[in-house]
Amino acid sequence: MLREVAALLAPRTGKAQIVGITGSPGVGKSTSTSVLVSAFRARGLRVGVLAVDPTSPFTGGALLGDRVRMQQHATDPEVYIRSMASRGHLGGLAWATPQALRVLDAAGCDVVLLETVGVGQSEVEVARLADTTVVLLAPGMGDGIQVAKAGILEIADIFVINKADRDGAANVLRDLRAMLALAGSNTQAWRPPIVRTVANQGEGLDRLVDAVDQHRDWMESTGELESRRSRRARDEIEAIAMIALRGKIQDIHGHDRLDALADAVAAGQTDPYAAADEVIAAF
Amino acid sequence: MLREVAALLAPRTGKAQIVGITGSPGVGKSTSTSVLVSAFRARGLRVGVLAVDPTSPFTGGALLGDRVRMQQHATDPEVYIRSMASRGHLGGLAWATPQALRVLDAAGCDVVLLETVGVGQSEVEVARLADTTVVLLAPGMGDGIQVAKAGILEIADIFVINKADRDGAANVLRDLRAMLALAGSNTQAWRPPIVRTVANQGEGLDRLVDAVDQHRDWMESTGELESRRSRRARDEIEAIAMIALRGKIQDIHGHDRLDALADAVAAGQTDPYAAADEVIAAF
Repeated sequence: MLREVAALLAPRTGKAQIVGITGSPGVGKSTSTSVLVSAFRARGLRVGVLAVDPTSPFTGGALLGDRVRMQQHATDPEVYIRSMASRGHLGGLAWATPQALRVLDAAGCDVVLLETVGVGQSEVEVARLADTTVVLLAPGMGDGIQVAKAGILEIADIFVINKADRDGAANVLRDLRAMLALAGSNTQAWRPPIVRTVANQGEGLDRLVDAVDQHRDWMESTGELESRRSRRARDEIEAIAMIALRGKIQDIHGHDRLDALADAVAAGQTDPYAAADEVIAAF
Repeated sequence: MLREVAALLAPRTGKAQIVGITGSPGVGKSTSTSVLVSAFRARGLRVGVLAVDPTSPFTGGALLGDRVRMQQHATDPEVYIRSMASRGHLGGLAWATPQALRVLDAAGCDVVLLETVGVGQSEVEVARLADTTVVLLAPGMGDGIQVAKAGILEIADIFVINKADRDGAANVLRDLRAMLALAGSNTQAWRPPIVRTVANQGEGLDRLVDAVDQHRDWMESTGELESRRSRRARDEIEAIAMIALRGKIQDIHGHDRLDALADAVAAGQTDPYAAADEVIAAF
C-alpha cells in the first residue's frame, strides 16, 4: 500500500520548500507556525503544516490540539494540516515523517512547515528532513543554555528571537551573536540571519518569510538544495532497506533461533558480536 | 577490538543489577544517584555509575561535571563512574550503552546505576536497558504533566517522589496514585512502590535501596530477570547486525551507486521503496 502510494507520488514531488521549525518548549513555535501560515497565504502560496511530537506516542495530541490560532486555517482549502507522533516509532522522525512530507509536497504545497519541539535529538532530525531550518529562541528560557545547546549552531539556517519585546531579548541576541562569532564563518557561505519577532502580535513575520525566500534562492543558486535533497533521499532509502533487512532476518531465522541466541548472550555463553555474526552469516 | 573485549567479558557478566534512574530535568537525579551510591556502599556493595546524556554529543559533560556530591565517591576504589553522551550516535543509547554496562558488570559491580535525563525517548530506552527502572518525580515541575507523561507508567518499576518535604509533594503523590489506579492492576503482579525521598538530606534512600532489592528478588523468583536480559540481548544483537549490514550495503554498492539512487529519488524519477529494493536485491 505504502509502496504504491510512494510510486504514484514520486513524479509529483520536489516543488515544496520544507521549512523545519524547532526550539525549546515555550519559545512560541505553535504561535509562530500559525502566523507564518498567514504570512505565506498572504503571498498567495499553498501551505502545508506537519507537526511532529517526538515526546508522544499518540497522534494529534497536544502539539496541534491546544492551539486556537491554528483553527483559523482549518477551513482554508489552500492549507493542509497534519499532526503526528513519533515516539516509539522505529527510527522516530526518520521513518514516518518523509512519507508525510511527500504527501504534502505532492498535494501541491509551495511551502511545508515541519514543526517539532526541540528535545533530545529531534532538532537534528528535523534539520536532516528540512530544506531550511528555523531555530526559535526566546528570552527567559535559560538563555545561555538555550543558545549554547549542542548542535543549534550547526543546524540553523535562520535564527528567530521570538518575544523580542520582552526584557532579556537583547541578552539573547548578544549571546547568540557571541556564539556565532566564536563558531567562525560558515564555509558554506550562508550566514544565518537573526530575525526578531513578536509572533502573537504578528510582528516580524514578513521579515521571516523574506529570510526563508532568500535561503531558498541561495540554495538553488549554489546547488545546495539538490545536495540536501539527495542526502535526505539517501537516508530514507537506507532506513527502508534496514527495516526490510530486519524483516528478512526474522524470516530466515525465525523467532526461536533469535531467542536462543539472545538467551546465550544473556547467560554469558557468547557475546553479542559473535551472535550478530551468526545472524548475518545467513545472507 | 570491541569484538575481542566483548568475547572476553561475556563469561564475567550477569551479576550486576542494572538500575535505570530517570526523570525530568530538575527532579534531582544527580543528587539521588550520588546518595544512592552511598547507601549501596554502606551495605558493602560494589557500585558502578553510568551517566548518559542524550542531549549532548560530547562525553563527560554537564551530567557528571557539575556535581560536587559525586566527587566524594571519586576516590572510593569500590565505585566506578563513567559518563557518556549518546546524541548523534547511531541508535542513541541502544548502541553504545550496553557495552559500557557490560564493562561495569564484568568489573564486579553488584549494582550499576544508569542515569539519564528524561527527554524524548530516553526513558523508554533506559527502561529497555535496565533490570529495574526508577522514575523520579518532584513537586513544582508541572506536576500533572510530569505524572501523565506518556510511557512513565509502563516503564517504572519504582516511583520516587523526591523533594518530599516541599509544598506540592502531596499533590504529586495524589496524582500519581490516581494515574496508577486508572491504569489498573499490573498483569505482571509487581505493583510499583512509591518511595518519598529528600535526596539532598539523605532521607528515604534506605527505603529506596530496599525497594530495589525487593524488585530484584521478585524478578529472580518469577523468571522476569532472565526474560528482561534476553530481550535486551536480542535488541543488542539486532543493533549490531543492522550496523554490520549497513556496512555491507556500502561495500556492495559503493558510495557512487547509492548516491545515484538518492539523486533519482530526490528528482522524483523513482521512489524510495523501489530504490531500497535495488539496494537489498544484492543480498
